[in-house]
Amino acid sequence: MDFKDWEPFFYPKSVAVIGASIKLFKFGNRFLQALLDFKYPGKIYPVNPRGVKILGLDSWLLQDITDPIDLVYITVPAVQVPEELRKCAQKNYKNIIILTAGFKETGDEGQKIEEECAKVAKKHDLRVIGPNCFGIYHPKGGITLLPGGDFPKDSGNITMLSQSGGHSVNFVLLGQSDGLRFSKVISYGNAVDLDLPDYLEFLNEDPDTDLVAAYTEGVRDINKLKQSLREFKKPLVLWKGGLTEDGARAATSHTGFLSGQAEVWKGFFQQNRAKILRVHNFEELLDTTKAMAYLPPLEKREVLSQKVGVIGGGGGIGIEISDAANAHELKIPKLSEATRKGLKVLLPAEGTSISNPLDIGNPLYIGDQGEVLNVFMQDPNISVLIYDFIVDFVFDLRTMVRIIRDFKEKNDIPIIIILRELLNTANNISLEIKYRKYRDKFHEIKVPTFPSFYRGVRALANYLRYYENHL
Amino acid sequence: MDFKDWEPFFYPKSVAVIGASIKLFKFGNRFLQALLDFKYPGKIYPVNPRGVKILGLDSWLLQDITDPIDLVYITVPAVQVPEELRKCAQKNYKNIIILTAGFKETGDEGQKIEEECAKVAKKHDLRVIGPNCFGIYHPKGGITLLPGGDFPKDSGNITMLSQSGGHSVNFVLLGQSDGLRFSKVISYGNAVDLDLPDYLEFLNEDPDTDLVAAYTEGVRDINKLKQSLREFKKPLVLWKGGLTEDGARAATSHTGFLSGQAEVWKGFFQQNRAKILRVHNFEELLDTTKAMAYLPPLEKREVLSQKVGVIGGGGGIGIEISDAANAHELKIPKLSEATRKGLKVLLPAEGTSISNPLDIGNPLYIGDQGEVLNVFMQDPNISVLIYDFIVDFVFDLRTMVRIIRDFKEKNDIPIIIILRELLNTANNISLEIKYRKYRDKFHEIKVPTFPSFYRGVRALANYLRYYENHL
Repeated sequence: MDFKDWEPFFYPKSVAVIGASIKLFKFGNRFLQALLDFKYPGKIYPVNPRGVKILGLDSWLLQDITDPIDLVYITVPAVQVPEELRKCAQKNYKNIIILTAGFKETGDEGQKIEEECAKVAKKHDLRVIGPNCFGIYHPKGGITLLPGGDFPKDSGNITMLSQSGGHSVNFVLLGQSDGLRFSKVISYGNAVDLDLPDYLEFLNEDPDTDLVAAYTEGVRDINKLKQSLREFKKPLVLWKGGLTEDGARAATSHTGFLSGQAEVWKGFFQQNRAKILRVHNFEELLDTTKAMAYLPPLEKREVLSQKVGVIGGGGGIGIEISDAANAHELKIPKLSEATRKGLKVLLPAEGTSISNPLDIGNPLYIGDQGEVLNVFMQDPNISVLIYDFIVDFVFDLRTMVRIIRDFKEKNDIPIIIILRELLNTANNISLEIKYRKYRDKFHEIKVPTFPSFYRGVRALANYLRYYENHL
Repeated sequence: MDFKDWEPFFYPKSVAVIGASIKLFKFGNRFLQALLDFKYPGKIYPVNPRGVKILGLDSWLLQDITDPIDLVYITVPAVQVPEELRKCAQKNYKNIIILTAGFKETGDEGQKIEEECAKVAKKHDLRVIGPNCFGIYHPKGGITLLPGGDFPKDSGNITMLSQSGGHSVNFVLLGQSDGLRFSKVISYGNAVDLDLPDYLEFLNEDPDTDLVAAYTEGVRDINKLKQSLREFKKPLVLWKGGLTEDGARAATSHTGFLSGQAEVWKGFFQQNRAKILRVHNFEELLDTTKAMAYLPPLEKREVLSQKVGVIGGGGGIGIEISDAANAHELKIPKLSEATRKGLKVLLPAEGTSISNPLDIGNPLYIGDQGEVLNVFMQDPNISVLIYDFIVDFVFDLRTMVRIIRDFKEKNDIPIIIILRELLNTANNISLEIKYRKYRDKFHEIKVPTFPSFYRGVRALANYLRYYENHL
């Protein structure tokens, strides 16, 4: 598939929704509503045999449409889909997204219908996304996912691929909370035609995509995936679901993929460890993508994972973060004598610990933290920083944001912030608002925050390992 | 130490604070402030040589106090502590908490002072908690930790032991968010005298404690710990920090324990796996304690970990939770044919998946979920339930709380709720308030909620494993 062939999927000037319905809860209606809410700027043709108005739009019979249609969404029941594909082919509507579920994930009957769809697509050279998916979110083109009428209108440089519609929606929403913005999100379900290797081939060329996050349950042709990876030049964070016994069974009834084959995938990840940032669940996918998006790309091969410095308050906390770091193969090395001397001048003796992790003790000494940061990070053993905060403990987080921004302007090293919450009862919601505002401020200066040691350390380790393996 | 000897630590009728200070940020002052804020009902003697008023209280010289003092808090610098201990011994003040830091965690000098403290304590038969700790929180006795002036006044049946002051504070605060209440929290720092085995011996007898959560960096005598465990009859959730290389180094500069010895502890946990619920970080300590507190104690040995049912919405989510469950050695078995038939009558064919995990699809079918729950849980393969919710997706969570409460009244089986958040930006705080209120409602009916699959599955697996090993 040539690069330009993808254009109608992302910048459709006209779309048809086959199966648009006046029934409030039907997918066809809900999808149409999402497109309208998102203010899709092109022409919309709801296709419905009854000729009624749907959400204020005239509905059409497919044969009566005289305009070319860039993109067709199919939402009729599975059993009718092959026939609708044939009709599209007749009219030379080449680009199809099948939102309908009820194909091979439901058993033999559905499997047959899906195979028929594949045949029709192949015969007529149709390009099909889905079935059993939520579609495409592409703010530049003005289109959105099934439930995404209120998704952000601004674009970013991250593209997310997902066989699961639920994960694609959650990724946009939680990513939005983290300040992430997307070039595209493609929910592609059962992958009857276009599959992960095709999407990667396209994204490799796509100037709007710098980073790819993907969730897969299986690929039809793993050799094709290997081949597309050979050419692939961008960071790819990949989560393979369904590798355990029960997970594989669940995947079969989701997108119909026999997605176990643990050994095959183990080998695949092993072979491609320099290309792929492998993750294991939704949070790790999101956190690692955030780390890759916000932290500076490393340009020479340096083993920075052995040079991690930690600043925080509290001894027990320093032990926990050290244990978490070591478990993720990060090393928290000792400070040099010069650094220790320098810090001793700046920090009080009582309630602090001049080592790595650096326990700065009582947070009241915040005024000197810029200097503490400078001295600590000049240590030759330290090139990466984890800074641990508790929002209701540090009394002047605004100053801390400024200190870290100033430091970062002079030293573009990887810094992550652990921004832990305390006491999240319904009564102290003002603390939560403060928490979110400070999180946003750190994200504005491209310093990622994480809600726990474990999540932060894991994301940092993934980011460092990627560049250590890749360069 | 006899059971009654502990009473003055928890129900002190009078306390002295040696080192009470007028300086705002000194620990002595801050501790005194916490006691006053907490409305400690007994008599307080601030001890200070200058004879000034401290926070409105007359200060004393130790030798001028004529009353017996049940509990002495020492907050003077480390170097003065042995002398103060001697003075206490002279006055027959036997029960001491040393809040001061700067002992063996700081190196040789501090080590010597700590050894002297141990000697004085032994010679005069003093009972010492600390040094380098935050003290005791015991709502029934009206006393609190160093920064705990606003801790809950009501008691629960959980006792928490922690060498780290920070962890003890966070445990109370985040536990409070989860509806947990405490009998006691003891922050015991370097354990110069009383150590983990002593506390366990006491708690085994304590009628107010049904469940113990503990954080340790090391014990002075692991054989004594083994011995105290032999007698111990209550569930103990235990986190050992500092088992990695860097974690051990951090522990040495925290409470001065050489806390590595990974092999010794590995053997210890292996030998005591029927008695101890081992956890690995703060979140796991909290989550597992919550599961143990809220879920029904199992009374016969049943291998329930192989009988876990999952209900939720979304196929990708079902795969993720299955993978997470299998990774924690939980089994998500297939449904019986009878159950599948029963569910087919209740659920629409489209957008659902009649299996385990049960994908109930579109949440609009909430009206039937009570019946769905009944049919699903009658399956002979299922005896434990994980129910996955998204707060802003299910439109009537209040009904869901009622359905689960009703089900639980008739069937006291282990149920956990996964209550995931979406879109936590600063602008949608009302969603957060809703989230917290529903979480609280579930906790009121003793159904624990968890913010992610991973945390929920891990806590459930720990709870089930405890009873499977223990009974």
